[in-house]
Amino acid sequence: MPSVGFGLWKVDKETCADTVYNAIKAGYRLFDAAADYGNEKQAGEGLRRALQEGIVKREDIFITSKLWNTFHAQEHVKKVTRMQLEHWGIDYFDLFLIHFPISLKYVDPNHRYPAEWMGDDGKVHLEKVPMHETWKAMEELVDDSLVKNIGLSNCQGSLILDILQYAKYEPQVLQIELHPYLTQEPLVDLCKRWGIAVTAYSSFGPQSYLELGMGKTAPSLLDHSIIGAIASAHGKTPAQVLLRWATQRGLAVIPKSNDHGRLVSNLQCDGFDLTEQELAAISGLNMNYRLNDPVNIEPLLSIFA
Amino acid sequence: MPSVGFGLWKVDKETCADTVYNAIKAGYRLFDAAADYGNEKQAGEGLRRALQEGIVKREDIFITSKLWNTFHAQEHVKKVTRMQLEHWGIDYFDLFLIHFPISLKYVDPNHRYPAEWMGDDGKVHLEKVPMHETWKAMEELVDDSLVKNIGLSNCQGSLILDILQYAKYEPQVLQIELHPYLTQEPLVDLCKRWGIAVTAYSSFGPQSYLELGMGKTAPSLLDHSIIGAIASAHGKTPAQVLLRWATQRGLAVIPKSNDHGRLVSNLQCDGFDLTEQELAAISGLNMNYRLNDPVNIEPLLSIFA
Repeated sequence: MPSVGFGLWKVDKETCADTVYNAIKAGYRLFDAAADYGNEKQAGEGLRRALQEGIVKREDIFITSKLWNTFHAQEHVKKVTRMQLEHWGIDYFDLFLIHFPISLKYVDPNHRYPAEWMGDDGKVHLEKVPMHETWKAMEELVDDSLVKNIGLSNCQGSLILDILQYAKYEPQVLQIELHPYLTQEPLVDLCKRWGIAVTAYSSFGPQSYLELGMGKTAPSLLDHSIIGAIASAHGKTPAQVLLRWATQRGLAVIPKSNDHGRLVSNLQCDGFDLTEQELAAISGLNMNYRLNDPVNIEPLLSIFA
Repeated sequence: MPSVGFGLWKVDKETCADTVYNAIKAGYRLFDAAADYGNEKQAGEGLRRALQEGIVKREDIFITSKLWNTFHAQEHVKKVTRMQLEHWGIDYFDLFLIHFPISLKYVDPNHRYPAEWMGDDGKVHLEKVPMHETWKAMEELVDDSLVKNIGLSNCQGSLILDILQYAKYEPQVLQIELHPYLTQEPLVDLCKRWGIAVTAYSSFGPQSYLELGMGKTAPSLLDHSIIGAIASAHGKTPAQVLLRWATQRGLAVIPKSNDHGRLVSNLQCDGFDLTEQELAAISGLNMNYRLNDPVNIEPLLSIFA
């Protein structure tokens, strides 16, 4: 799995095909998608163009996607995965993650897709599906060669440890919110010890949430004086420093940018090393500041409590 | 369930029968036990004496016990529960908890009991048993009238939410480390919303761990100036303030004391109210300082990551 990929969250449908195509031309080989991002068809178009032009082959590209909360039941997992593959125009995902350890009431894709968090009445409707049922269905995707690897997202330690008790195929990857304001060392340690790769999302912290009206209570990491000073010392951008802080510690990252220059620059975050002191100074910004927490949508969904 | 009980952790075998007997005479009606505490026989003797003398009836007393990590497999749960009931000399527990969401290799009680964390070789041996198997076995204890209620201890939010997906009988109680240095508001909120009662253990924080050579890196809560000032203002002891801080917020507590005077005083912690400002000042001491964490015994056991 490439350590720097392109995250498709909040990439506009209108520009998504071009963005993916240009990202491949710029050298990106991993795309991080999800049913919930609503742009898998368009991302697939961009990929197809690059494949048709012979810029890359399918096997050069690593595509991650995710199972949405409304499809956790055994009878829905395979159907929706096939549909997502169709949207992409490919016949397997390299990695397929359970997006959240949360099961919501099924919404027929013909009725609304992506279903997001709320039902038609604007409320969250839970549906009782245990993780062991969903994980078993995920394992069947591997057996059916629809996905090469399976993993988790937004999970805590105790739930991961429980999944490891019954997994026929262990989770290969955990994708979590992780940035200098939310460093999650114990969870990263757990994953290292159990052989699970970690992908950090929201590497720029509050930045990704400003357009959602969130993240205003903490200072920007991209404008932070400590990050800025380290960036200057290396002749790099603050974004590159934030990404390198993660990759140098063995984490994969999936930055997104709608700006081509930044997209290119983000990919070039591995050509330098931060000192131990610099890594520690950045980690020292931790304040357990979490931006993506479903409890803010529905108080019953305390998956991080 | 009484909101103030007596915790049997670290109560010496030699004094345990007298302690339980005297605690009942002093008014305690809840005893918090566990296979792991190694004193259930002696606690049962103390109870029997009080019952024989007519001080209380069985139904006046609420007895909590816990399933140890080496007995998580379906085939061991009922056997060990029956054995623990025999040790107590009673025919049901009012509440039975899964002590940790951790499954260790079975140790025959005839070989060593309590088995504690390590095998004969001084190492921790994990055994793959998922929580849903253990929870089902716990539910059978209810069906067999061996226990009246079942619950959890030392669990995080996401695991609790998963158990709620498949539980025939939902967990009634969560017992967790909780004191002003580890306030765990999100987890307490989760329990309130899902109708799970919370019992706080280690209400005095580091104090309980000093004899184990732990807890020295944080100042004592019993000697803390903020707690002391509040205690003086109410004419109470710091211990009573720490307990009231919990019970006033709807938590149950299970203090232990080997000193009869303190044992009596701990029980009298409900006759006064702290102000909102005092509650907030105490909660403000939170620093997510956790003392009881299995990761310190075996790094793979990151149940709180």
